Amino acid sequence: MRTDHGGSLAQYKQKFGGEWLDFSANISPLGVPARVLHEAQKAIEKADQYPDAECYALRKAIAADTGIPAEQIVCGNGAADLIYRIPRIFRGKKALLPVPAFSEYEAALTEADCKAELFFLKEELGFCLPWDFPVYLRQDLDLLILCQPNNPTGIPIEPALLKKLLLCCQEKDITLVVDECFLDFLEEPKRYSLQEELKKTEKLILLRAFTKSYGMAGLRLGYALCSNPGMSERLQQCAPPWAVSNVAQAAGIAALSEKEYLSSLRKLVAKERERLIPELKKLGFKVIPGKANFLLFYSPDAFLGKKLEQKKILIRDCSSFPGLQEGWFRTAIRKKEENELLLQAMREAMR
Amino acid sequence: MRTDHGGSLAQYKQKFGGEWLDFSANISPLGVPARVLHEAQKAIEKADQYPDAECYALRKAIAADTGIPAEQIVCGNGAADLIYRIPRIFRGKKALLPVPAFSEYEAALTEADCKAELFFLKEELGFCLPWDFPVYLRQDLDLLILCQPNNPTGIPIEPALLKKLLLCCQEKDITLVVDECFLDFLEEPKRYSLQEELKKTEKLILLRAFTKSYGMAGLRLGYALCSNPGMSERLQQCAPPWAVSNVAQAAGIAALSEKEYLSSLRKLVAKERERLIPELKKLGFKVIPGKANFLLFYSPDAFLGKKLEQKKILIRDCSSFPGLQEGWFRTAIRKKEENELLLQAMREAMR
Repeated sequence: MRTDHGGSLAQYKQKFGGEWLDFSANISPLGVPARVLHEAQKAIEKADQYPDAECYALRKAIAADTGIPAEQIVCGNGAADLIYRIPRIFRGKKALLPVPAFSEYEAALTEADCKAELFFLKEELGFCLPWDFPVYLRQDLDLLILCQPNNPTGIPIEPALLKKLLLCCQEKDITLVVDECFLDFLEEPKRYSLQEELKKTEKLILLRAFTKSYGMAGLRLGYALCSNPGMSERLQQCAPPWAVSNVAQAAGIAALSEKEYLSSLRKLVAKERERLIPELKKLGFKVIPGKANFLLFYSPDAFLGKKLEQKKILIRDCSSFPGLQEGWFRTAIRKKEENELLLQAMREAMR
Repeated sequence: MRTDHGGSLAQYKQKFGGEWLDFSANISPLGVPARVLHEAQKAIEKADQYPDAECYALRKAIAADTGIPAEQIVCGNGAADLIYRIPRIFRGKKALLPVPAFSEYEAALTEADCKAELFFLKEELGFCLPWDFPVYLRQDLDLLILCQPNNPTGIPIEPALLKKLLLCCQEKDITLVVDECFLDFLEEPKRYSLQEELKKTEKLILLRAFTKSYGMAGLRLGYALCSNPGMSERLQQCAPPWAVSNVAQAAGIAALSEKEYLSSLRKLVAKERERLIPELKKLGFKVIPGKANFLLFYSPDAFLGKKLEQKKILIRDCSSFPGLQEGWFRTAIRKKEENELLLQAMREAMR
């Protein structure tokens, strides 16, 4: 059983049966918005038609939502699909990758014969990207992959530093990829996004997912915003046609108008995050003060994950992340009553 | 607008509006089986859970259906996904590709820096693979890609020749890939399949799709049967996790028990095929006597496609296939009343 990712709930259910509480995947605790579900159900009725290979209506909706022209948008079978496409257009090139980070960046780079140079974020600096990071952007790099806010730490990159990095990348002809899949959970998403810079620069790609913000993990939908249409064309061509199902396209269009859902979600997560941090500390954990819908923490008892599994609760064991050791875990932030069950189980486990 | 594939119905609808009849895509004319639709709808309710990245339950169901062990099965986001994965594990190698063939084989090979050597099937031989084809299997080849029955010709490879080719590939260390996506439409699918050979050989991959046989084009689901688990593991690893949505996994499991649907579909298509061939000939077309759910034909009027478009009917212009010229078209075989509308429109167009 593959357990190097969160979200292996289906496999646990199949193996052990019963009801599980899943804190290992960082999905919206509010479920899929009702209207999105409804549109997805309706799309099933057209299951016998090929999906639009170019996702025209969906890209138009994203264009309206972001202000980025449709020809600079590429939709994919989840953000993971796009994470694998990007290195393909940089085959054999060199990428700098601050870690700990989502493990698929490195896997995708390796798959495309790219060299992934790891930059280890330091625990002493709270896993923040250091202010002198631009000095590490050497001329021989082709790609820099960042995550805003970062997974699994939840730590955002300061807007001033991010813009400085973008300039630096521009000077050195490095393409900057920023995974903004968890951006919606920050208090001021716009301030932390490079979306406005897309119009002013040449080599920038932003990644977004519907998975986390709208709880659509099972339907698979993500997109890339590219600073130039040539780049989006290459990202479209390097993958099979019809990558995005009818269902995902319909659900995505519906999700984009769910602004109230998104603001309720952001409020809930912010409130629960503030409540959870001191509670986790009380249990003896070292908690990284992330700003996303999950928290990274260190437990002196490295068996915490296994102990919670016995109570049919999943959290994410982070010891497989480069830069993290045994004892590091990540938990999603869910609804108050679910978080209470997690805390209760943790108290019992740590007794 | 991308029109180098069939199945661009969504794009035509968006551009021109109204109701269209689509004979450009080779999908089951019977629609998605009711129970499959029902299971897909139910899966939508679990849209907020990650799909099982390993498609365990689906692979078990395919294993039960085919007799091939689950660890030799890889599921993908449509057969197209797997068509793109295979060349990735042969990066930079050399493939032999009889054409005309589905255009994505060559696109996928090119994308993985493989060299695609085209073998032009001859119209004089009815686009059949010639009996002396084994002599073209040289030692420097790594991959042979066949389609059984072939798309766009509908012509199957004789079982005796196919087995001879498999032996020849084995001798010369060539991996044989057979796309069996249209196999279900043949009168004796088992006789034309290499499924039984999977157990006796090392380097064989068979591709299957749910798209055509169960009308599930919009949901995206295909699978590969590999002759050894090492191969399937590499095919699984060279793509992002969670490639197959919850919905497709649930629909696929349900589809596999629809044996009666499949036999009705096969009967309908066979009957309509026999009826359509003489009717198309009467219109002055040269018809290739294919055995699948579509027919390739040559029209002396190369504007036939455009003329049908004006009547809101789509057929597939095949002039973009290597080995075919202007005037070659492919039409799907659909229900009797739909085929009648097509014939009527063709009669008017050819008047």
